[in-house]
Amino acid sequence: MSSDLDVDLRSDTVTTPSTAMREAAAVADVGDDVYRDDPTVNELESRAAEMVGMEAALYVPSGTMGNQIAVHTHAEPGDELLVERESHIYRWELGGAASLSGVQTRPIDAGDRGVPTPDQVREGIVERDLHRPGTGLCALENTHNYRGGAAIGKSAIDAAATAAHDHAVPVHVDGARIFNAAVALDVDASDLLERVDSVMFCLSKGLGAPVGSMLAGPAAFIEEARRVRKLFGGGMRQAGMIAAPGLCALENVDRLADDHANAARLAEGLEELPGLSTSDPDTNIVVVDVEGAGRTAAEFASACADAGVGCVEFGRRTVRFTTHLDVDRGDVETALERIEGIVG
Amino acid sequence: MSSDLDVDLRSDTVTTPSTAMREAAAVADVGDDVYRDDPTVNELESRAAEMVGMEAALYVPSGTMGNQIAVHTHAEPGDELLVERESHIYRWELGGAASLSGVQTRPIDAGDRGVPTPDQVREGIVERDLHRPGTGLCALENTHNYRGGAAIGKSAIDAAATAAHDHAVPVHVDGARIFNAAVALDVDASDLLERVDSVMFCLSKGLGAPVGSMLAGPAAFIEEARRVRKLFGGGMRQAGMIAAPGLCALENVDRLADDHANAARLAEGLEELPGLSTSDPDTNIVVVDVEGAGRTAAEFASACADAGVGCVEFGRRTVRFTTHLDVDRGDVETALERIEGIVG
Amino acid sequence: MSSDLDVDLRSDTVTTPSTAMREAAAVADVGDDVYRDDPTVNELESRAAEMVGMEAALYVPSGTMGNQIAVHTHAEPGDELLVERESHIYRWELGGAASLSGVQTRPIDAGDRGVPTPDQVREGIVERDLHRPGTGLCALENTHNYRGGAAIGKSAIDAAATAAHDHAVPVHVDGARIFNAAVALDVDASDLLERVDSVMFCLSKGLGAPVGSMLAGPAAFIEEARRVRKLFGGGMRQAGMIAAPGLCALENVDRLADDHANAARLAEGLEELPGLSTSDPDTNIVVVDVEGAGRTAAEFASACADAGVGCVEFGRRTVRFTTHLDVDRGDVETALERIEGIVG
Amino acid sequence: MSSDLDVDLRSDTVTTPSTAMREAAAVADVGDDVYRDDPTVNELESRAAEMVGMEAALYVPSGTMGNQIAVHTHAEPGDELLVERESHIYRWELGGAASLSGVQTRPIDAGDRGVPTPDQVREGIVERDLHRPGTGLCALENTHNYRGGAAIGKSAIDAAATAAHDHAVPVHVDGARIFNAAVALDVDASDLLERVDSVMFCLSKGLGAPVGSMLAGPAAFIEEARRVRKLFGGGMRQAGMIAAPGLCALENVDRLADDHANAARLAEGLEELPGLSTSDPDTNIVVVDVEGAGRTAAEFASACADAGVGCVEFGRRTVRFTTHLDVDRGDVETALERIEGIVG
Repeated sequence: MSSDLDVDLRSDTVTTPSTAMREAAAVADVGDDVYRDDPTVNELESRAAEMVGMEAALYVPSGTMGNQIAVHTHAEPGDELLVERESHIYRWELGGAASLSGVQTRPIDAGDRGVPTPDQVREGIVERDLHRPGTGLCALENTHNYRGGAAIGKSAIDAAATAAHDHAVPVHVDGARIFNAAVALDVDASDLLERVDSVMFCLSKGLGAPVGSMLAGPAAFIEEARRVRKLFGGGMRQAGMIAAPGLCALENVDRLADDHANAARLAEGLEELPGLSTSDPDTNIVVVDVEGAGRTAAEFASACADAGVGCVEFGRRTVRFTTHLDVDRGDVETALERIEGIVG
Repeated sequence: MSSDLDVDLRSDTVTTPSTAMREAAAVADVGDDVYRDDPTVNELESRAAEMVGMEAALYVPSGTMGNQIAVHTHAEPGDELLVERESHIYRWELGGAASLSGVQTRPIDAGDRGVPTPDQVREGIVERDLHRPGTGLCALENTHNYRGGAAIGKSAIDAAATAAHDHAVPVHVDGARIFNAAVALDVDASDLLERVDSVMFCLSKGLGAPVGSMLAGPAAFIEEARRVRKLFGGGMRQAGMIAAPGLCALENVDRLADDHANAARLAEGLEELPGLSTSDPDTNIVVVDVEGAGRTAAEFASACADAGVGCVEFGRRTVRFTTHLDVDRGDVETALERIEGIVG
Repeated sequence: MSSDLDVDLRSDTVTTPSTAMREAAAVADVGDDVYRDDPTVNELESRAAEMVGMEAALYVPSGTMGNQIAVHTHAEPGDELLVERESHIYRWELGGAASLSGVQTRPIDAGDRGVPTPDQVREGIVERDLHRPGTGLCALENTHNYRGGAAIGKSAIDAAATAAHDHAVPVHVDGARIFNAAVALDVDASDLLERVDSVMFCLSKGLGAPVGSMLAGPAAFIEEARRVRKLFGGGMRQAGMIAAPGLCALENVDRLADDHANAARLAEGLEELPGLSTSDPDTNIVVVDVEGAGRTAAEFASACADAGVGCVEFGRRTVRFTTHLDVDRGDVETALERIEGIVG
Repeated sequence: MSSDLDVDLRSDTVTTPSTAMREAAAVADVGDDVYRDDPTVNELESRAAEMVGMEAALYVPSGTMGNQIAVHTHAEPGDELLVERESHIYRWELGGAASLSGVQTRPIDAGDRGVPTPDQVREGIVERDLHRPGTGLCALENTHNYRGGAAIGKSAIDAAATAAHDHAVPVHVDGARIFNAAVALDVDASDLLERVDSVMFCLSKGLGAPVGSMLAGPAAFIEEARRVRKLFGGGMRQAGMIAAPGLCALENVDRLADDHANAARLAEGLEELPGLSTSDPDTNIVVVDVEGAGRTAAEFASACADAGVGCVEFGRRTVRFTTHLDVDRGDVETALERIEGIVG
């Protein structure tokens, strides 16, 4: 572990590549992906598309790029992007929709479950006219990070997507952790995505790859997205060397259940500690209200770090713990002991 | 009146220029305003600045351009614009903040009164960091059109502006109808604007000029705004010919009280009609809920038009009537009679 | 004349409105043009379209806005705009193509005649592929201001347009002074524009209107352009008051011949003065090389201004004189006398 | 080799990673680079900065991203970017300066040597005023790909940079192959860059890394660039796995001399073949005029491919061959034999 933490629960992005991934990188068959000559990237794109039930996929350096390519490809300048108000696209991507694509954001507050209702989608859609931007894209997030890793079920997604499609608005899913949702809900990711037009998912969070995300959708959409990737500077050369660990990461879907079990145990243990309040997590994210412990979130996170446990400030009174493949049950128990030492 | 309506209450933008305005245009002293040689424009800019208590002002072809120049001048691409969710800048300017300036909109729902509380401002402001756009501008609207012409008092504006300034965020007021607010509240417009950084107001709504709006603020801000006006294509030549009626319009502030009285009478009369529901208007805008009359807003507005009374659909169940200087008390009574014929 | 100059030859934008124009403004039949209720604007748009042989036209506050609306409507972000390297769109519109529309400029040096040859157009067109922006629009300028008011003939325009169309690239003409070209060439403007897709021309230069320009093209193009005009803030209300002088201006086409004759006389006179060198002008613009007079262009223009004659610095060693309807033959002779006093 | 070519001279981007690079990836010490926890990336950034004599550096997924981050960081929307007309930034980056940064391109034709003279720089710089965009950045390219891999000497770069700095315009070098220039000229890269403000160089061309480029400059510039990298989607997680081969690539500078020698031999051999014409290359790029061989460039490149030799169409009558570390002297001789079979 590269930081000074004994148990790093800051994010599932901190996982270090496995031995298998390292070996895969070392022997990867590569070529110039800009010429589409890299067989490993080609295989990764093909397998990723299949896993999410889409025609085609594109390997991109980050989830942010995958989402922003989707915005740029689906929507036009002067269009609106309908997003959830706590979504990553809206809050954590530096205003890219406006800055890179000239697209105006219209946030919906979807509440705890993180997915807008069909009524909210309908009310949020604007019909293009002489005075008003029209809605060019509706984006959903699953699992929804800032709603505590909420796993959104197929019926809710289908309903939102149908409402959007009724107004000819395409739907993109920020599925950075879509496989966490699929595992938690015990369905195939492709079922969850059956009605949507495109999805981005990360190889580098719960699945454990060192680098990269996938953008998937119809073949014509991905063809145009490939051009936008070049525009954004995401075209890489012998990318097979990092695509190879990505292929390994696709094998890690089933083991996400372990992260979810560890998160459940962590939540259970934290709930028992004085002054902490949390609820049963859907997936691998545990959001804890620390106000009862007499500290701000920042103070609490800092105290945890001093005690060797990594977490992140999430709101003024909440912190987030995230389980991942570098954390086992013993680490969770260690974390609970250390935190008990802080609030006990 | 240029339309087929007997009483046109669609908007206060429909006023036709007075004889005095027409004569002023005919004899205006003009020059090439791009070279700043137009004495009439110069006088208008000087007087407008004074009336709103700002250092300098700029004549622009429309309120939309005034607002969008303010966004472009105050904020940078990748910044956020904090706006009210029913505000004109957000809803009715074709996504210009994103499309022309690369600025992401963050709407606040300020409810009936249309101005966010200091807490809402504070919660809406984002501190710029590696992952998040920073707030570059906070925009308020006064009177607030979609909140029924609500006149926002000095204390509420000052409080919101102070909250923004505490985070070094400048404040712009879309004051398309700022003089309606001033008259309704019986204060000087400059008092209402004491704490804000810039204001746009229209010469062409209640004040009755045929064309144009003013953007006012600090001298350095207006200097830069002049350049942005050129970029947006708002630099005009012998603009004195339409600035001259604008100077006349500045004399029309006091008479806005008549529009407010007419609106009050209209609201009172409508409230008495079966199935219609409204409330006492702050200024010259009357929003009426027509659901009790068994018609959609669109149907109701259409029936009014057939009866020679202009109003506009405002929401699914609401229509808006706006009084202005081409409408007198007799017109209001005529309108009430015609509408009684529809719902009676 | 609003400046201190006795003979203002700085630009044909400095003309002041005639008595007829002022009277037309005073009695104009107007309405709210945003609702398309202004009969005077409607008439102006209709007549303007007819004069340039296009289906429809749109009244805009400035030539810059007309050109930039054309760029925004024809091209998409990431496209290229093929322009002449001394053209107004490229040099004098504040980088609007990039800033407002995300369009990359590709300038061609068309030399003295200001219109690229078909070969230059073909070489300048880029076919869109995975790595390269495609050409989205080709813009020509006629008359070409910075090429000394050069009047470009139909055959040259047709040839350039055909070359662009062969690659499915639309053609826009910045015809700020297209009627100067038509008069100089003794053809109808609509003949000069027969093969192009859109044209902007100014009411406010040689034609003498105080404010405004027209953008003309196919009906569907103008419909979309109307929306872009709103986005840019160019939608005005009772615009008939300034459209009425614009209608008068359309009557001023034939008299442009006087400006051309005055320019010819001015050039002849200047050529005879010591140290000054010029050539026979096509239209109303006279560019003079002042190097032989032992002064920089800035020094020369300043000396002229001191002597009561307005001209503008054009290059390091050239100044520009422009004739217009506020300048008669006597003014030209006065100007020549004053300049003789400087260089004699 | 991943393609079907026996000798792939299409580009130096096609190199496959060495065994040492693969091993370095396999054992790299990594962390989450978004938290700046990746020691390998940190080391790469530190060493890269040192090699080009800059304060700081940033690892980016591609050269295009490095260049476009530089444009976005140095310049503002509405600024101009002064570029060479055959430069990569202008021709091959999909109009990113306009599309991502709202920056207008002003190309200079610098001729065979690819670097503008100080006079060309001075003439190309525009002073910002009310009508004109100001120059926000001057970009040079070294070696200059489309000028046949021309290695631009220190005096020419210094002179151009000084001319730009005299007008307070910063200078960025697209140094995708800056080490080819340094080796060819027998100087340190940091000498070549002494007077410029930022540089991008590729790890993935002659240096042979599979993925990535470096953007280097002053510390404050790189700090802001890091934020823009996030905006563009270039922030990666355990990037150490591909940064590790990048560190190996930094050891490959001296061996670029072999590529240059091979290119010289190739040029010599091609010049002897009937119908082909070339000149002595500065570095690893050989541009050949094939018109004398009675084929278009596309036909010639296609014939080469059929014969197992990769090259790329460069112009209508020119093709480009590029030597690199996967090509040795024997490969060059093989290529010459095969080509002789085509044109002989």
